[in-house]
Amino acid sequence: MSKDKVIRMEHGAGGETMQALIREVILDNITSRSAGLVGLDNLDDGATINIASTIANNKNSDEIVITTDSHVIKPAFFPNSNIGRLAVSGTVNDLAVMGAAPLALTCAIVVPEGFELDSFEQIIRSMNETAEEVGVPIITGDTKTIERNGLDSIIINTTGIGIADEVIRDCGMCPGDRIILTGTIGDHGISLLAHREGFDLTTDLVSDVAPLWNMIRSVIPIRTIEGRPAISAMKDPTRGGLAGALNEMAQKSGTGIIIEQKDLPIKRSVSSACEMLGIDPLEVANEGKAVICVKAEHAEEVLSIIREHEYGKDAAIIGEATDENSRKVLMRTTIGSMRYVDTPTGDLIPRIC
Amino acid sequence: MSKDKVIRMEHGAGGETMQALIREVILDNITSRSAGLVGLDNLDDGATINIASTIANNKNSDEIVITTDSHVIKPAFFPNSNIGRLAVSGTVNDLAVMGAAPLALTCAIVVPEGFELDSFEQIIRSMNETAEEVGVPIITGDTKTIERNGLDSIIINTTGIGIADEVIRDCGMCPGDRIILTGTIGDHGISLLAHREGFDLTTDLVSDVAPLWNMIRSVIPIRTIEGRPAISAMKDPTRGGLAGALNEMAQKSGTGIIIEQKDLPIKRSVSSACEMLGIDPLEVANEGKAVICVKAEHAEEVLSIIREHEYGKDAAIIGEATDENSRKVLMRTTIGSMRYVDTPTGDLIPRIC
Ligand SMILES: Nc1ncnc2c1ncn2[C@@H]1O[C@H](COP(=O)(O)OP(=O)(O)OP(=O)(O)O)[C@@H](O)[C@H]1O
Ligand SMILES: Nc1ncnc2c1ncn2[C@@H]1O[C@H](COP(=O)(O)OP(=O)(O)OP(=O)(O)O)[C@@H](O)[C@H]1O
Ligand SMILES: [Mg+2]
Ligand SMILES: [Mg+2]
Ligand SMILES: [Mg+2]
Ligand SMILES: [Mg+2]
Ligand SMILES: [Mg+2]
Ligand SMILES: [Mg+2]
Repeated sequence: MSKDKVIRMEHGAGGETMQALIREVILDNITSRSAGLVGLDNLDDGATINIASTIANNKNSDEIVITTDSHVIKPAFFPNSNIGRLAVSGTVNDLAVMGAAPLALTCAIVVPEGFELDSFEQIIRSMNETAEEVGVPIITGDTKTIERNGLDSIIINTTGIGIADEVIRDCGMCPGDRIILTGTIGDHGISLLAHREGFDLTTDLVSDVAPLWNMIRSVIPIRTIEGRPAISAMKDPTRGGLAGALNEMAQKSGTGIIIEQKDLPIKRSVSSACEMLGIDPLEVANEGKAVICVKAEHAEEVLSIIREHEYGKDAAIIGEATDENSRKVLMRTTIGSMRYVDTPTGDLIPRIC
Repeated sequence: MSKDKVIRMEHGAGGETMQALIREVILDNITSRSAGLVGLDNLDDGATINIASTIANNKNSDEIVITTDSHVIKPAFFPNSNIGRLAVSGTVNDLAVMGAAPLALTCAIVVPEGFELDSFEQIIRSMNETAEEVGVPIITGDTKTIERNGLDSIIINTTGIGIADEVIRDCGMCPGDRIILTGTIGDHGISLLAHREGFDLTTDLVSDVAPLWNMIRSVIPIRTIEGRPAISAMKDPTRGGLAGALNEMAQKSGTGIIIEQKDLPIKRSVSSACEMLGIDPLEVANEGKAVICVKAEHAEEVLSIIREHEYGKDAAIIGEATDENSRKVLMRTTIGSMRYVDTPTGDLIPRIC
């Protein structure tokens, strides 16, 4: 391995070179490698999760939760972070917004020939750090190589397996429920755009990419006096941004949504960049945010718990679910007018996924 | 959707265009879409598997099995099959060789702009057919697009979740165990090479890609008189071929292996192509074969059951595990000499993964 500086086709060929890469660059950098009888160290055809004990410890759980995302972000390294942290965060967050504690992750990498081995290792280290942050093992994976003219950057797929006491859907919103956004919108998309296009927007604007399980887990157990979950729906506003997530939640729940522009957390650098470039910040992707719909009487309680967490310090109640305008999202602007917030139609602006 | 003939960047942008693609081209072509409370139809952040009932029905199971593979084969369509069938088969087979019945699959696609929509749909249909063959639902997925100059073909990741009464490892071989190969070697790699390079080797040589669960499930329950599993180890000889799989099994089990060249099932077209091109057929990838190590007294029984199945009609006992030559694989050639069969070192020949 040490003699190589870049990925070669052999690193995906299933022979000794691949085995050395997996042992020396992957296994050696991953701290937590097992969730049951067969783990990453066994390098078998897959791995196992000890589920009987998990189910026994989560007495309400009849279901495990599964989610998958492929990450194709370019460049693979961006201010403050990289594709490795993004891949683990994205999958942890899809589990978290379904109310599920992460049990295990898979890691499937497709990498072009010529990719720097140092960068590869740094990405694995970031995956490990991010997984450690929420205590989830990486138990199995796959590594494939593609000729340099067939692919221009690394692609990582992570699948997550989780367990929820009670699964939280994105369709459970009722009129009157309050909508909490856990932080500022647009940071990921706009910081990436600035980095890629070489704009110098500001020195402090970085991607918000973060694994939200430790924050979200603290509000999941909250119950109404009738003993029902206080959280009625949850979603991470990734591609399609806040506009996409809210529209999906309204459509699936059959309610309307009204949000207040004045209450929307947004960094000044993000809003001025959006204005300058003619981008709607509501449509920009986020990678460390959640939309949490909560019964009105618990909204302040949930908000204050979320705000205690580092990833939730800018959280705000941004609106509520309504009877009227069923399946539509409305925004009261800062000047008092109302406008519809639609599902984004066109291309991803900026192209960041 | 109907107005489009090819994939555009918007198909991966998280907005209405992507939603239409997922609904019209993916959901409409997948027959079995749920394994629990939240399925593909719900288009939530992920999906669930009802595991409590599964565990209750598989009383010996404490563990669920997880496996993941990304498929990057070029061209995406090859004689008799395509990347969709390959992706589902590969993941079903990794579960099967661990002794696990498939419970659910995920489907994460990365596709370049400009990819034909008809081809995309045909791939989804093949995934569905192959999944239907073994009765496994596809419950969640992801779709990302890349600019046409950033990727030259479609990439599919499938992760499988399965359950085993007893997990079968690739390290459990004991001296004296017989080694069964479920069919001819090299068909996948050589047929692909011929197709790609435009050789006309033969008219009947096609890839062996197939999902093996229905065949393998019939031999898993066989027990020794002491009540232990008759199968001691199992592996699918994919990248690295039979040579790679046998070496890994020998190394992990600490036994030697001796195989008989005369007993090795191989098509004449494959052996002559390999001879002509200077390729060792033992190192060529297979996508519809399994290596099954079985207690000697059950070898004939397992072999005859495997042979009854369409994917196992050419199965043969190819050798056995030995005390001597620990961690090495030896082959008695047809002329009676002995040679070591090593783990492949170099590049994948042909490059087919
Ligand atoms: N990027 C990765 N991260 C974590 N583990 C990995 C990674 N790549 C491979 N592995 C592990 O290395 C072992 C060998 O992987 P490999 O992909 O060769 O197995 P396979 O899927 O059975 O073979 P094939 O991919 O040829 O079908 C497996 O245990 C796998 O989990
Ligand atoms: N190729 C596919 N096969 C099956 N289902 C898919 C596929 N692509 C997307 N889906 C399903 O469509 C829904 C929306 O997918 P999407 O990827 O937008 O969700 P997400 O992961 O929450 O968002 P993001 O990918 O932006 O993080 C999910 O329920 C997902 O399972
Ligand atoms: Mg395998
Ligand atoms: Mg996601
Ligand atoms: Mg693999
Ligand atoms: Mg999501
Ligand atoms: Mg495999
Ligand atoms: Mg997704």
